[in-house]
Amino acid sequence: MNYFYLVPIASIVALFFAYYFFKRMMRESEGTERMQTIARYVREGAMSYLKQQYKVVTLVFIILALVFAVMAYFGLQNSWVPFAFLTGGFFSGLAGFFGMKTATYASARTANAVQRSLNSGLQIAFRSGAVMGLVVVGLALLDISAWYLILDYFVDDADGGHKLVMITTTMLTFGMGASTQALFARVGGGIYTKAADVGADLVGKVEAGIPEDDPRNPATIADNVGDNVGDVAGMGADLYESYCGSILSTAALGASAFVLNPSMQQNAVFAPMIIAAIGVFLSIIGIFIVRTKEQATMRQLMDALNRGVNVSALLIAISAFGILYLLGFSNWVGLSFSVISGLLAGIIIGQGTEYFTSHSYKPTRMIAESAKTGPATVIISGMGTGFISTVIPVVTIVMAILISYLAAIRFDVTNMMAAENLSMGLYGIAIAAVGMLSTLGITLATDAYGPIADNAGGNAEMSGLDPEVRKRTDALDALGNTTAATGKGFAIGSAALTALALMASYMEEIRIGMLRLGSDVLLFPDGETVEVARASFVDFMNYFQVTLMNPKVLAGIFLGSMMAFLFCGLTMNAVGRAAQRMVEEVRRQFREIQGIMTGETTPDYARCVEISTKGAQREMLLPSLLTIAVPVFVGLLLGVAGVMGLLAGGLGAGFVLAIFMANSGGAWDNAKKYIEEGHLGGKGSEAHKATVVGDTVGDPFKDTSGPSLNILVKLMSMVSIVMAGLTVAWSLL
Amino acid sequence: MNYFYLVPIASIVALFFAYYFFKRMMRESEGTERMQTIARYVREGAMSYLKQQYKVVTLVFIILALVFAVMAYFGLQNSWVPFAFLTGGFFSGLAGFFGMKTATYASARTANAVQRSLNSGLQIAFRSGAVMGLVVVGLALLDISAWYLILDYFVDDADGGHKLVMITTTMLTFGMGASTQALFARVGGGIYTKAADVGADLVGKVEAGIPEDDPRNPATIADNVGDNVGDVAGMGADLYESYCGSILSTAALGASAFVLNPSMQQNAVFAPMIIAAIGVFLSIIGIFIVRTKEQATMRQLMDALNRGVNVSALLIAISAFGILYLLGFSNWVGLSFSVISGLLAGIIIGQGTEYFTSHSYKPTRMIAESAKTGPATVIISGMGTGFISTVIPVVTIVMAILISYLAAIRFDVTNMMAAENLSMGLYGIAIAAVGMLSTLGITLATDAYGPIADNAGGNAEMSGLDPEVRKRTDALDALGNTTAATGKGFAIGSAALTALALMASYMEEIRIGMLRLGSDVLLFPDGETVEVARASFVDFMNYFQVTLMNPKVLAGIFLGSMMAFLFCGLTMNAVGRAAQRMVEEVRRQFREIQGIMTGETTPDYARCVEISTKGAQREMLLPSLLTIAVPVFVGLLLGVAGVMGLLAGGLGAGFVLAIFMANSGGAWDNAKKYIEEGHLGGKGSEAHKATVVGDTVGDPFKDTSGPSLNILVKLMSMVSIVMAGLTVAWSLL
Repeated sequence: MNYFYLVPIASIVALFFAYYFFKRMMRESEGTERMQTIARYVREGAMSYLKQQYKVVTLVFIILALVFAVMAYFGLQNSWVPFAFLTGGFFSGLAGFFGMKTATYASARTANAVQRSLNSGLQIAFRSGAVMGLVVVGLALLDISAWYLILDYFVDDADGGHKLVMITTTMLTFGMGASTQALFARVGGGIYTKAADVGADLVGKVEAGIPEDDPRNPATIADNVGDNVGDVAGMGADLYESYCGSILSTAALGASAFVLNPSMQQNAVFAPMIIAAIGVFLSIIGIFIVRTKEQATMRQLMDALNRGVNVSALLIAISAFGILYLLGFSNWVGLSFSVISGLLAGIIIGQGTEYFTSHSYKPTRMIAESAKTGPATVIISGMGTGFISTVIPVVTIVMAILISYLAAIRFDVTNMMAAENLSMGLYGIAIAAVGMLSTLGITLATDAYGPIADNAGGNAEMSGLDPEVRKRTDALDALGNTTAATGKGFAIGSAALTALALMASYMEEIRIGMLRLGSDVLLFPDGETVEVARASFVDFMNYFQVTLMNPKVLAGIFLGSMMAFLFCGLTMNAVGRAAQRMVEEVRRQFREIQGIMTGETTPDYARCVEISTKGAQREMLLPSLLTIAVPVFVGLLLGVAGVMGLLAGGLGAGFVLAIFMANSGGAWDNAKKYIEEGHLGGKGSEAHKATVVGDTVGDPFKDTSGPSLNILVKLMSMVSIVMAGLTVAWSLL
Repeated sequence: MNYFYLVPIASIVALFFAYYFFKRMMRESEGTERMQTIARYVREGAMSYLKQQYKVVTLVFIILALVFAVMAYFGLQNSWVPFAFLTGGFFSGLAGFFGMKTATYASARTANAVQRSLNSGLQIAFRSGAVMGLVVVGLALLDISAWYLILDYFVDDADGGHKLVMITTTMLTFGMGASTQALFARVGGGIYTKAADVGADLVGKVEAGIPEDDPRNPATIADNVGDNVGDVAGMGADLYESYCGSILSTAALGASAFVLNPSMQQNAVFAPMIIAAIGVFLSIIGIFIVRTKEQATMRQLMDALNRGVNVSALLIAISAFGILYLLGFSNWVGLSFSVISGLLAGIIIGQGTEYFTSHSYKPTRMIAESAKTGPATVIISGMGTGFISTVIPVVTIVMAILISYLAAIRFDVTNMMAAENLSMGLYGIAIAAVGMLSTLGITLATDAYGPIADNAGGNAEMSGLDPEVRKRTDALDALGNTTAATGKGFAIGSAALTALALMASYMEEIRIGMLRLGSDVLLFPDGETVEVARASFVDFMNYFQVTLMNPKVLAGIFLGSMMAFLFCGLTMNAVGRAAQRMVEEVRRQFREIQGIMTGETTPDYARCVEISTKGAQREMLLPSLLTIAVPVFVGLLLGVAGVMGLLAGGLGAGFVLAIFMANSGGAWDNAKKYIEEGHLGGKGSEAHKATVVGDTVGDPFKDTSGPSLNILVKLMSMVSIVMAGLTVAWSLL
């Protein structure tokens, strides 16, 4: 229990530094009056969106909490679940809210500071990004330690190692709250930002021929608001969820793996939390390392950022050995290699993303080349490249799965699926995900500062600052895209590993569900019996026949793959429809409001903000509710075997589809930038127009559908986990 | 054995009628001299392509046959395998060859006949399509009955029901020959046709502003050749493979399900063959039903086609009851419902395809609407629609799997995974696929006559016939697209069911492999032992731990999903590159050869044919060889569990991805046609240009990557089956 207190301490330290960085940022000047006005517009638009979003989401949360309360009443769940669910959602939303608030205050200040020097701009933008990183990890560890202490106090110490299993499986349900919040944030924010972006571009850039972020474009404020609600608030909620999910699923698997060894069980539950806590301290060190001399070149800035991230990653790899040794794991060396394999996988996936999406490399340049024959070939080659780019992440994650599993069981190959090895190996996979996310405090900072720099550029443009300022913010933004590749690698990789761990946790919840319903014994067809409380994962697999010849499993795999595609389709079409409305509104304003184009009249920005807000709210409901409803129905129809198939199919197809969409979108974006830098005819050429089409298609790919898929996969697991009791009680087949 | 002779008889009858229809078609006039010349150009181009294609494929076949011979030498396979493999490939290629030869003779004749009346054109085109349908089923049943008789004569009647297991698992390996041939045909043909099409359109339509199929376009002959090698020869080889695969895997599962009941085992092996044989007779009846009065309207023609297909389907549904009753199955009623569930699934999937891709319905019209805001929104909405369109086929196939399984085991829900039920249920799934494909003779005719009508239109255009002729061939083509939707439903649905059956057959091959290597006993961790020869599928699943918690299975699922995406990426990029070369050549000819545009000089058609041929040959190798190599490596690295994961992941993601690509492509094509019919500004408007971009992107979607995915999924299973011995002997983990 002693080491455990590192967790709340780390939480408080993280929140303290977040507050400190926030205050320091607020002391900076926000620039001219015009800059302040623009920033206020964006801030108000963003806040009004979040307010609307939270209203809808609160309603959904209340309904779901009531459902869980009813389930608890009928003994299908324990009575902590509704409360845990609500706090998970609340804190996840709060993380997004704080992150966004900081970002909307920081953009004008970044634009102002960048006039002095690149480094000043970087410091403000990056430290503001760090606020979000630290808020996310701080709130997550706060929620985790609070619930642990509460449940530890209230849950009966019934038999043996059972108490910790109860605690950790209950805590998992606050992961569902976080996931649900994250999904709404990602989907709603993603639709918002891309509807505004696509709408602004189609009429402004293409029809009216005015540049990006031009103040005459009525949708330009909505576009900048979108960067905040989609890329900042959405990302914050998303990674809050990944972070919690990986820690909680590891804890649950630890409780299960060591159920017969009470002294180690406690430490196995604490291990992921403590790795995360140490990661907080190391992230803060990393954040302070990111500094360079005042008149630094881009190269030096980039080195500074990379140094911060790499030092943190290196230190956590080393610390893993110490932590796991001190906690008394006999396989501490192996488990440390599991952590390292996760870290390495994140880095390799990030490098792969960089290779396939940066215009410094061949694939994106080939897409730019194909623009010579028009938009169709841009789309074909972008999709082709995106499809092919899935190879590196998949092979990497497969290696990480196998290595983290085998390292945890000391490469006991001939016996790798023995019951005790299976539990330990799955724990190894889960802890690899924790390792990957442990330095989230800093990796998220490198991710979140990009949109801040982007918005700073928008502010500079709209405020009529010197074009040099815009150039500098663009440079900061580009730098962010490069370092963010690593961040994305960590986010995608950890989602896959966490989803695997959640599948294992699902079996744990089935156990609890059976015990709650009084099914104490698994009766096998050959007459053999195994106590549910002591049954291994292998026993459960055999009992529920979760094999690849069971038609229910196969049906589940088909449905899971389909869910990933359906979800993409719904979100893509949602962006299409919402953008359509925006296009019509912008056209209307150009037509009806006199003097917009000459700059004499200010366009009606608020109306565009409202259209994006309403569009996003209307469109986010169906895909989100489907994600929650489908696992429940599959559970009721096809039972445990069907649900496991659903999760496996959704994970397999969803992971690959997510990478495809993110990388195609990124490559199109950068192919356009490559031409804008003056290649192949440069801005305004036919080739450039062709890549603008690619970029527009890529927008919903990379900022709406792609990132939401990560959450889809995890939320389906979370829903299955929370609904396990229902599946056990009432499944049909 | 008596009923068995229906199979060779059906084969000969099918080939006889194919010959008869061919001869009747050849008696028709090929029209003016110009029409004959154009037809000869296309015919020669197509034949020169096939010649080149068969050279490359023969080399691959020889190498693979040598590999199998070496494996047989080392006792990892039986010595029939290399020969069975070669005949499968040979007959599959032959089916494509005959189909294409017929099509290239039929197109000018159709153009000529359509001058008389729509019905005359339909008769020639449809009966020429029927030649291919009947050649495919005739050759397949010939190959199947010949090999059955050979193996029945030579294989020792060792112990009990073992002989039929040996025969059927050996016969499966000629399925690999057919699959390999089909993959090369589909990929090579698909790259060829789309490189020519995209190349011709980009320079001809977009840059030079001349209409489709204009004789001044140097790539126009290559484009017409492409329709023949891709849509006809490729499709013929593809469906030959599906047809054989479904029959052979059902036979193998029948031999296994009834291994303890020798009298029924024989009939269980014959059942799929006999259903197919009866299907041949019913298809011929259906083909003769397709006739209508000379001056028929489009509506009447469509009714005539539908009547033919529906009568055949209805009759086979009824016959199933009789056949299965006469063969003495105690569950004949249930198995007949399995057949019917397969047939219904095919029809529903076809209707869904129709709904999502025809411009009579909302989804495609919405895509056309989105053209008002340019190509980017066309692409976004087309992809969104394609993603969503996967729901109907997936839900349908899931229902078909569950119903055909449960019907076969008499809805024994509480015991559905007991060993004997599992075997019987899988047999039910497999026979559902056979039912779906049993009337292939006629459904393939409705599919294959489309490209013939299309080519007839090309011929009419190039020969300068009255525009009314072109209109009529277009109408025939459109009609073909509608009826072909059902054909596609059957092809996709049967591929999914067959792939499932092949997964089960794989376990059967593992059994044979173990026996061949002298592993007679499965030793379980708890000390229990089961004889390999008598082990059930459930025993194998448990022994190899093919559960969804095994990291090897999960790794396999990831890799399988990735394979589907990688394959799409490679083929998409291949089309992009080959089209690029075509574009350059067409531009060169316009630039260097004087008088093309004025019609004074004939362009160098042969050069374009050559470029497409070389491009296709060069580009088809990598994706095809990967498909063969990956299952082998996964088997060696991750063993049986990894392979099963690979197949399940590939099937789940591949099936959904295939539907997405086919439907997006089809919808884009028809959105363009919708605008060309005069909506939203009609031909030449900005909206039309936007849909041309969509159509161009859709070309490789629906004609290269999409259809090849079906084969990818089945070929990976086939390779695993043939390599099972290697996996058993040498797998690492």
